[in-house]
Amino acid sequence: MPFTRWAKDEPQELPRVPARRTAIVTCMDARIDPLAALGMHLGDAHVIRNAGALVTDDTIRSLAISQRMLDTRAVVIIGHTDCGLEGLDEGAAVEAIAAEAGTVPPWRPGSFASVEDQVRASVEAVRSSPFIPHRDDVTGFVHDVGVAGGVRPVA
Amino acid sequence: MPFTRWAKDEPQELPRVPARRTAIVTCMDARIDPLAALGMHLGDAHVIRNAGALVTDDTIRSLAISQRMLDTRAVVIIGHTDCGLEGLDEGAAVEAIAAEAGTVPPWRPGSFASVEDQVRASVEAVRSSPFIPHRDDVTGFVHDVGVAGGVRPVA
Repeated sequence: MPFTRWAKDEPQELPRVPARRTAIVTCMDARIDPLAALGMHLGDAHVIRNAGALVTDDTIRSLAISQRMLDTRAVVIIGHTDCGLEGLDEGAAVEAIAAEAGTVPPWRPGSFASVEDQVRASVEAVRSSPFIPHRDDVTGFVHDVGVAGGVRPVA
Repeated sequence: MPFTRWAKDEPQELPRVPARRTAIVTCMDARIDPLAALGMHLGDAHVIRNAGALVTDDTIRSLAISQRMLDTRAVVIIGHTDCGLEGLDEGAAVEAIAAEAGTVPPWRPGSFASVEDQVRASVEAVRSSPFIPHRDDVTGFVHDVGVAGGVRPVA
């Protein structure tokens, strides 16, 4: 990776606490702009991303720190269509990874059958976590990749 | 959260495979624009984010899927100054969380003493993971929050 500089118009004086008191959980997918999806701007929200927008132990860790140390109150989970984990054969994937690595991974790939159901389950996982202090404002959306205006509420 | 629409200028036809074949790992911090930090654009890279830009099991899961299913080859880890986890008293934090939740979390908050050392350790964690097929191009940067031109290579 070459060393590159920040764009000259990069805002420099944003506060540490997210202006919209929100933490977004979404997928690592290269096509997703999480802030644009919600009409937000740099500085408005924490952004947590992993493969599949899953609520894992590490997601809960990040949300707990977001709320406890940096005063966020709302959680927004955004899944998306055309995700590589939707419909993936979990057993075959684990087998292939273990064969190549020479050892079984301590995690599951995290495949799911329906992105809508997955987002609903993720919202429920946050709402029922004892480690998240503020659970009144947890919502779920699906972003339809490649469709204009494509975030729709599902939970 | 109100339902909002994508900006009209949102690119709609990006490919699923990241154009720059890169996965970025960085912090959830609201002030970080990971793509701008590296002079990249939407569609160029997977973006994985958690509290502290840590390489956890979930980070390895995401990177494994990124490389195995979506053909990325390079990993870039970006820590940043003024992170809430730098210098945090880990024991006190766990105690406070456990007291409020009524149970001890299955994760550690993930505090660190030096962001430079933390990024170097994260780069090493990726380079030594048997679950990551491509480990030749793993680099680490620190973003100096609030300073123009603020990403510098540390690993």
